[in-house]
Amino acid sequence: MTGWLAVAGLGPGDEAMVTPEVRAALAEATDVIGYFPYVARVAPRDGLTLHASDNRVEIDRAQLALQLAASGARVVIVSSGDPGVFAMASALFEALETWPDLQTLDIRILPGITAMLAAAAHTGAPLGHDFCCINLSDNLKPWPLVERRLRLAAQADFAMAFYNPRSVSRPHQFARALDILREECGPDRLITFARAVTTPEERIVTVSLAEAVPEMADMRTVVIVGNAATRRVGRFVYTPRSAV
Amino acid sequence: MTGWLAVAGLGPGDEAMVTPEVRAALAEATDVIGYFPYVARVAPRDGLTLHASDNRVEIDRAQLALQLAASGARVVIVSSGDPGVFAMASALFEALETWPDLQTLDIRILPGITAMLAAAAHTGAPLGHDFCCINLSDNLKPWPLVERRLRLAAQADFAMAFYNPRSVSRPHQFARALDILREECGPDRLITFARAVTTPEERIVTVSLAEAVPEMADMRTVVIVGNAATRRVGRFVYTPRSAV
Repeated sequence: MTGWLAVAGLGPGDEAMVTPEVRAALAEATDVIGYFPYVARVAPRDGLTLHASDNRVEIDRAQLALQLAASGARVVIVSSGDPGVFAMASALFEALETWPDLQTLDIRILPGITAMLAAAAHTGAPLGHDFCCINLSDNLKPWPLVERRLRLAAQADFAMAFYNPRSVSRPHQFARALDILREECGPDRLITFARAVTTPEERIVTVSLAEAVPEMADMRTVVIVGNAATRRVGRFVYTPRSAV
Repeated sequence: MTGWLAVAGLGPGDEAMVTPEVRAALAEATDVIGYFPYVARVAPRDGLTLHASDNRVEIDRAQLALQLAASGARVVIVSSGDPGVFAMASALFEALETWPDLQTLDIRILPGITAMLAAAAHTGAPLGHDFCCINLSDNLKPWPLVERRLRLAAQADFAMAFYNPRSVSRPHQFARALDILREECGPDRLITFARAVTTPEERIVTVSLAEAVPEMADMRTVVIVGNAATRRVGRFVYTPRSAV
């Protein structure tokens, strides 16, 4: 019995954005592990055990996956979006670091459409030039580091994509982030709030930084800030390929 | 006859990474337009015209696509990777900006697996924390701006992904980029050269910045530089989720 472990990205929500590679891994799996809304996207079938867990138990989930694969199971950890972008892949390697015996296991990371790419596509092409991608949550890093990164990213004139912009437990930080962006980028810079992208609840709104208010974002929102050249064309927002 | 235009990402090369959404658009298309190696990935069939063109004619390609769609054709512009990341989506909107009459056309951008996500997945999880994505080509921006962005990105302690790191026409610039990175990040920082990811020629090598030489990259290489915490675990390279 040869076990393996795949960490697979289910994309932002639309089943038509799940890659055939990921579908094939799910079809061969004996065990699927993940945060419950992602596991709920996998159809039950004979021979497949679904292990759904709550948020914030990423390391437990990774350890369970490693143990099952080591005992011969074919395991898929499911992430939304891409597993390598603020998702389960890093948590898996953190767990693997403490278990050197398992480092020769058959482990594969299967990429997916991360939320910012789907959000950008449905907005136009706001990430069409150099950009950065920042997780605004301070669960795993100090907030002053977030502020510092925002300022440096603005000074580099990167377009920016933000994950986890605003949660109930820290409602004031995103207001602070908007203040920093207004200071660094001026009031006219375009900002897009893309909520629940590719799902039936998708809602995408673009305003200027002057018009932006924190309530436009929640934890299901990806926020995209343009660079100095980002502009509207018809109903779209795009960033030109060239810069001066 | 109602025409439409989709700009679709074919992913990094492996057909198992093409999304069903993109497959469906290709199946309905009357015309496929793109750089010839990407058009070569689309199977010919009755009722489908393939329009392959050379590199650096992005605006011509976008104009042809808009004209065909406006006359009732079902048009797919194909990009490798994701169309919104250093690919055809921004070029399309640049062309659309000059033709206001066509701004009500049915236009959709279909996301794909961009090269850095596939490269990161096959390396481990080097982009598992805040990161930036920079096109190192100076075709469309002045080289000093690239240097400035590299320094600011390093000061922000972003992991970094570089597209188009090195071409025959500008062999010295990537050497200069490596010098800047060594200056800002020190000699021990990990750098990954991921060439022809997901194709039969895939080759992924990780070294320290001290060991990196420009010849490790060419135009088929995505380069990923870790942040200060990026490290090896077994045969993988990953960036932890947390930062201090």
